[in-house]
Amino acid sequence: MSNTYDMAAFRERIGAIRVEDNATLLKQKSRDFYWYSPVLKRELDAVAADLMVSPTTEAEVKTVLAAAYALGIPVTPRGAGTGNYGQAMPLNGGVLLNLSEMNKIKSITPGRVVSEPGALLIDIDRAVGESGQELRMFPSTRATATIAGFVAGGSGGIGSITWGGLRDFGNVLRLRVLTMEAEPRALELTGADLHKAIHAYGTNGVITEVEMPLTAKYDWTDVIVGFDSYDAAVGYGLALGEQDGILKKLVTAVAAPAPQTYFLRHKALIPEGSSVALVTVAAHSLDAFHAFTAQFKRARVLLDASTASPETMKGLPPNYELSWNHTTLRGLRVDPSITYLQTRYPDVDTAGNIKRIHDKYGLEVMGHIEVIRMGGRVVAVGLPMVRFSTEERLQQIMDEHEAMGALIFNPHRYTLEEGGMKQTDAIQLAFKRETDPQGLLNPGKMIAFEDPNFDFASGKAFLFPGLEARAAAAEA
Amino acid sequence: MSNTYDMAAFRERIGAIRVEDNATLLKQKSRDFYWYSPVLKRELDAVAADLMVSPTTEAEVKTVLAAAYALGIPVTPRGAGTGNYGQAMPLNGGVLLNLSEMNKIKSITPGRVVSEPGALLIDIDRAVGESGQELRMFPSTRATATIAGFVAGGSGGIGSITWGGLRDFGNVLRLRVLTMEAEPRALELTGADLHKAIHAYGTNGVITEVEMPLTAKYDWTDVIVGFDSYDAAVGYGLALGEQDGILKKLVTAVAAPAPQTYFLRHKALIPEGSSVALVTVAAHSLDAFHAFTAQFKRARVLLDASTASPETMKGLPPNYELSWNHTTLRGLRVDPSITYLQTRYPDVDTAGNIKRIHDKYGLEVMGHIEVIRMGGRVVAVGLPMVRFSTEERLQQIMDEHEAMGALIFNPHRYTLEEGGMKQTDAIQLAFKRETDPQGLLNPGKMIAFEDPNFDFASGKAFLFPGLEARAAAAEA
Repeated sequence: MSNTYDMAAFRERIGAIRVEDNATLLKQKSRDFYWYSPVLKRELDAVAADLMVSPTTEAEVKTVLAAAYALGIPVTPRGAGTGNYGQAMPLNGGVLLNLSEMNKIKSITPGRVVSEPGALLIDIDRAVGESGQELRMFPSTRATATIAGFVAGGSGGIGSITWGGLRDFGNVLRLRVLTMEAEPRALELTGADLHKAIHAYGTNGVITEVEMPLTAKYDWTDVIVGFDSYDAAVGYGLALGEQDGILKKLVTAVAAPAPQTYFLRHKALIPEGSSVALVTVAAHSLDAFHAFTAQFKRARVLLDASTASPETMKGLPPNYELSWNHTTLRGLRVDPSITYLQTRYPDVDTAGNIKRIHDKYGLEVMGHIEVIRMGGRVVAVGLPMVRFSTEERLQQIMDEHEAMGALIFNPHRYTLEEGGMKQTDAIQLAFKRETDPQGLLNPGKMIAFEDPNFDFASGKAFLFPGLEARAAAAEA
Repeated sequence: MSNTYDMAAFRERIGAIRVEDNATLLKQKSRDFYWYSPVLKRELDAVAADLMVSPTTEAEVKTVLAAAYALGIPVTPRGAGTGNYGQAMPLNGGVLLNLSEMNKIKSITPGRVVSEPGALLIDIDRAVGESGQELRMFPSTRATATIAGFVAGGSGGIGSITWGGLRDFGNVLRLRVLTMEAEPRALELTGADLHKAIHAYGTNGVITEVEMPLTAKYDWTDVIVGFDSYDAAVGYGLALGEQDGILKKLVTAVAAPAPQTYFLRHKALIPEGSSVALVTVAAHSLDAFHAFTAQFKRARVLLDASTASPETMKGLPPNYELSWNHTTLRGLRVDPSITYLQTRYPDVDTAGNIKRIHDKYGLEVMGHIEVIRMGGRVVAVGLPMVRFSTEERLQQIMDEHEAMGALIFNPHRYTLEEGGMKQTDAIQLAFKRETDPQGLLNPGKMIAFEDPNFDFASGKAFLFPGLEARAAAAEA
């Protein structure tokens, strides 16, 4: 609890809108999956909001924002809190704006769905499925994540092998956002303007409505293919990614011994020593998929959900819950000491570079790639799992990756810039200046706004002043 | 007419199956759009079948094949005859097997359509459209071409920017083919076996049933974008092709003055000097498309069918009937002396190479590319139009293209090999030996079968002996 802000006055201003001030609940709702990172765990463990507010209409959100603006109270929007970088954690305390009650699906037409921000991805897919449609992409947290949380805090996922990432033109159709001003305005963002708010962690507007493109919902089949080496699984995954005629939405490769050790429910299916490719393919592409796979002499189909017995399938999670950061999550459940990296491997000799990097670390870094489309090309991004020893060693591993040509998107940083391209996003910054002149929305996440002179070349991590102050206050 | 074959005995054997022996009709039905090529026009002008047979069931096709086999009469299967290389022209006369009466659509399920061989592409799309689906790709001759003709004689087309080509795994699901034997067998080809019969010109089996994959049918919008140079249109087209989030099925670039001169109904829309990009984009991707296009300072939207007035749209053919070989067709209608090439430009510095080649010829070779996916990458294939002077000059232009790094798929050859990669397709050859031991199916089109010792390096065109003999007989 903090007495920095006049929460009593705030509560009076927002009237009957539902709030929560139980300290335990507040702490719980103030976190996401930041604890995947031992660095963020250390830095963010004390973070907590002073009050959670759960509006159910856009008008109520407006009331909340106007009240907070008048009193100088920070507001951090939150969906389901499934992020991994503290995206929705209120570094400066204040109000946690829980948008998960605003979960209506407003309209479904051919190619489009409009929903409130808090609609769960899986609920949207259920609703649009009735018209034979589905979302183009979703994160591995589909079952619990919200649509606006995905747009504001995610980048792509299952489906990106066909459609690219969220920030690509066309993968978000429209966002309605409220500004953080004395009288909050509603802005409709379309076309190039969408870039202002996609993947901005809710720092420059509160999303109150989302319009997403849809694609055809066909039956999907999970397949797991085993290989006697990680290289072979990676090479297969990249080649499968390049099969334009085989409709798929997931191509993942995971190095032994992670599948055997971490995919507990699949244990009986995955032989010792096997690295695996996890694939989700349209049922009507299965013949073609198997014909393609048969070309790989070392490939062994370990599971084909379309032909496996009900006994085999019983209790198996879908492939997407073995992929992306669910791979890491399954690892953490078995070995809480691991953490992970986020990398992008070179486009040239991708497989060779992945092998070279993987071979360097032995069991310290367990290979995991996702094959996706990026800029029209099939590329590999990595979420390798790291047996954590010290923060210094973790940094060293990341530095070595970059020296070997693999880009690092550092998942051990909570700011937009440090996790991304280490430079100011001028468009998002300008939009924040317009929508949040007092810097009250999710403070501490956009370095360009907090400290325009921050030197990314210094090698130092950005430390949000409010975070230190809050931590000290919490200890006092 | 020829008396080489015992057509009377054949007619007796096939009983009541409908036949046509009118010489004028036979000559007309024995041709395709081979006349796009002055070389093929000279070589194939005299080609004619002795009889056309129009079965309406697979059982009738079997009867026809058994009868022809017993009497040693060649059989050339034909759909609508929309090919450009004499694919369905009976070089040795005999029976023209007209499959266009077998045009039933047999089943439509999510992701799949099963039809008889002679179903028109446009009719299939109409039928599957009722379930919100459509074919993944079609040729510019969609309105008249048959599905089996497309599979046997085509390679891709509108839709290939998303799905790649017909020969890619997954773009044809199943073919049922009859063998040319004493007792014709029905073979079901799936998976890797499909390669045996796709793009084999009906030389190694008669397709009696086709199963194709479907995709979502969304509203599609034609857009034409103008540029002050061909380079700019090409660069834009390649970049648009790489936009993974913008759902599209056509990206074409055509160099000035072809659009102004040949697209007669669009004349008022296309300024003098403009090269154009022809795009077909999903309605729900239009916002994104325009945001993307706005990044190109030299781009000028000349037509957006979603906002154009009914007066503007009146009488305009769809973009796909300006693309692929319909571009050439529109050219030929204005200037019957032109012909065309088929090229594939280098993957590295694609735009630079296209410019270099285009600049070399001035108005003699008018640039035209189609942007498609091939092997997971966005590439440019060309169908440039050539102001024809002599066959020698045409050959010289093709040789120069190859010297400059552009592959040529020679559209002035009627054999599978010379139009393709100039080498034996061992799988298709082995399949022909199995299905057509006497070489009666569409003779003269597979060099590997007719003359295994033919020397591709000789620089000489393959001349099918039967063709010469028939031509001599026709003159006599």
